[in-house]
Amino acid sequence: MARRRRDDGDLSQKKFINDPRNIVEEMLAGFVGTHSEQVRRLDGSRVIVALSAPPGKVGLVAGGGSGHEPALLGYVGVGLLDAVVVGEVFASPPAGEVLAAIEAVDSGEGVLLMIGNYAGDVMNFEMAMETARAAGHSVEMQVVTDDVAEGGDVSSRRGLAGSFFVWKCCGAAAEEGASLDEVRRVARKANAATRTMGVASSPATVPGTHKPLFTILENEVEIGVGHGEPGLSRETIRPVDEIVDELVEHLVSARLKDGLGKEVATLINGLGATPLMELYVAQRRLVENLADRGISVHRSFVGNYYTALDMAGFSIALMGLDEEMKYLIDAPATTAHFYTGARS
Amino acid sequence: MARRRRDDGDLSQKKFINDPRNIVEEMLAGFVGTHSEQVRRLDGSRVIVALSAPPGKVGLVAGGGSGHEPALLGYVGVGLLDAVVVGEVFASPPAGEVLAAIEAVDSGEGVLLMIGNYAGDVMNFEMAMETARAAGHSVEMQVVTDDVAEGGDVSSRRGLAGSFFVWKCCGAAAEEGASLDEVRRVARKANAATRTMGVASSPATVPGTHKPLFTILENEVEIGVGHGEPGLSRETIRPVDEIVDELVEHLVSARLKDGLGKEVATLINGLGATPLMELYVAQRRLVENLADRGISVHRSFVGNYYTALDMAGFSIALMGLDEEMKYLIDAPATTAHFYTGARS
Repeated sequence: MARRRRDDGDLSQKKFINDPRNIVEEMLAGFVGTHSEQVRRLDGSRVIVALSAPPGKVGLVAGGGSGHEPALLGYVGVGLLDAVVVGEVFASPPAGEVLAAIEAVDSGEGVLLMIGNYAGDVMNFEMAMETARAAGHSVEMQVVTDDVAEGGDVSSRRGLAGSFFVWKCCGAAAEEGASLDEVRRVARKANAATRTMGVASSPATVPGTHKPLFTILENEVEIGVGHGEPGLSRETIRPVDEIVDELVEHLVSARLKDGLGKEVATLINGLGATPLMELYVAQRRLVENLADRGISVHRSFVGNYYTALDMAGFSIALMGLDEEMKYLIDAPATTAHFYTGARS
Repeated sequence: MARRRRDDGDLSQKKFINDPRNIVEEMLAGFVGTHSEQVRRLDGSRVIVALSAPPGKVGLVAGGGSGHEPALLGYVGVGLLDAVVVGEVFASPPAGEVLAAIEAVDSGEGVLLMIGNYAGDVMNFEMAMETARAAGHSVEMQVVTDDVAEGGDVSSRRGLAGSFFVWKCCGAAAEEGASLDEVRRVARKANAATRTMGVASSPATVPGTHKPLFTILENEVEIGVGHGEPGLSRETIRPVDEIVDELVEHLVSARLKDGLGKEVATLINGLGATPLMELYVAQRRLVENLADRGISVHRSFVGNYYTALDMAGFSIALMGLDEEMKYLIDAPATTAHFYTGARS
C-alpha cells in the first residue's frame, strides 16, 4: 500500500512544488528577489528586464516556455539578453507580453527577437513583431535552428542549447554598439555556425501531470532528444565516450551544409538531472574527439545551461568560429547565471 | 526481458560514465581543460590550484570526496579557495595530497585548511597539518559543522552546503590581506553562525555500485539528509512550502546555542537532480518565512552549489550576519562556478 504509486497529480514524481498552476509565478518571485541587483520584473507581466541595459544600444529579447532554467531568464544582464519573456512550462508566452518586452528595451536603436524554432513561439513573436513595427519600432527576429537531429532540413530543426551561443554573440555585438542590421547579421551567422545534439537517459515530467513526457527503457538511452521532446533513436546505454563519439559524428556530418571549420566553441549542457561530474567526463572526451579530427577548441562551457526540468542527459553544442565569432564569444558578460570576465 | 534491471555495475542507474574507477581522473581532465584560465592541476596529484593566488596572502585549502560538484573544485579562484584536494567519490583524499596542497599555496603567510566534519577527512588533514608544521609551515584547520540535523551536539554535526559560507568569508578575508590568525577567527565565526538542513526525494548512487545508498519510498521524502547519507526522519511528501517551513523550524530551533540574529545570508542548494525552477520556488517561501519571523535576507544564493551526485532534493543554509560578515559575504569573487562582482 505504502509503495503504491501516488496519482494525485499535484505531487507526481515527488516534485518540490506547491500547486503546479502557480509554479511559474512562484519561480519568478524567487528569481527576481534573489537577483534584484541585476533584473526587475516588468509590472503586470512575465517579462524579466535587465537593470543594466544602457540607452543607445540595440535591445535583445528572447523568450519561450519555462522549465529550462537557468535559461532563459538567468541570461538577462550585461553582455547578453536585455529581456526575457517567460511562458508557462514548455509553452509559448503570449504576443502581448512579447510586445511589452519590445517596448521596454527599445531605446530607439531597435530590437532583435531571438526564439527557438517552435510553432507557438514563432507565431506569437511574429505577431508581436508586426504590432511593434506598426507602432514604429524597428524589430527583427532570429529563429534559432541549431538542432541537427532532424537532419538537413533547417525548417524542421528545433532551437536547443546552442541558442546560448547565438545569444552570447548577439549580446556582445549589441553591447559594443552594433546597429540592428549588424546584430541581425551576427545572429544569422551564429545560428548558421551552431549545431546541437542531445542524449537522454530519462524523460522530463511536467509539474501537475501524471506521467513522463515519453518513456525510455531501463537499459536504453535516447539519442537526438530536444528539451523535453523525444529523439531520433534508442539504443542500449554504452560508455559515455562512445555516446559522445556518436553525437559528434552527427554534429560534423556531411549532411550539414557548411563545415564547422577548424576552431570551435563547445558546450556540454546538462538537461537537468545529470551530475556535473558526468558532464566533465563527457567534456574530456569531446575535446579528445575533436582534436582527433583536427578541430581545436577555443572556449568550452560545461554545466546546466538549458535544461528540461528533471530530464537526465546532456546535449553537445558546437559553434564554428572565425575571428569575429571568437571575439564575440570571449566578450565579458555578467548575468545571474553566467559570467565571463574582461579580456585579459 | 528488455525491462529487466541491469546489474552490470559499470552502467547501473544509467550514468553517463566510462569505467567507474576512472571517473575522478576523467572529470579532472575535463575540468582543468575547461578552466585553464583559472586553475591548474598540481603535477602528479589531485590538487587543483588557482592560477591567481597572489604571493603574500594566507593560503586557503579545502578538500574532501568528489561527487559534490561544483563543490569543491569549482570554487578555486580569486576571493575564494586557493587549492582543493580531490578525493575519490565520497571518500577522503590522502594526507600526502593535502601536504602537497599546503606546500603549493604557502607563500610564507601560512595556510588555513577547511574540511567538513567527516572522520576520514579530519584524520588525513590533521596528519598533513602536523607534517607541514614539523616542516616549518604555519597551518591551522577549521572543521565545518553546519549540519543541524544532528541537533545540539556540535561534534557529531557534518559539514554540508553551509561550508560555502565559511569558504566565502575566509576567502574574502584572505584576499584583503588578513593574517592567518584573523582568517582563523573568521572561519570559526562563520562556522558558528552557519547552519544547514536538507531534504531528499531520492538518494544518490555511487558510480560502479549496484544500488542507491539508501532508499526512500515513492510517496516520501527524507528530512535531514547529508550529501549522500540518509537523514533524520521520513514523511509523506507535501507542498514544498510546508517542507521549507519545517526545515526553517529546525534551523532556527532553540536547541541551537546561538541565535541567528535579524539578518542572514541564505542558500537554497540543489543536491543534484532537482530542477532550478523548484529551487527558486523554495527560495520564495524561504524569504517569506524568514520575513514572518522578523529576519531579513541580506543576500541569497540559489543553485547547485554542493551536490551529492544524482540525489534529488535540496538543502537550506542560513548564516547569521553582522557588519563584518556582510562585508565578507558581499566581497567580489571569481571562480569557475561562482561569481560576485565588485561592490557597487
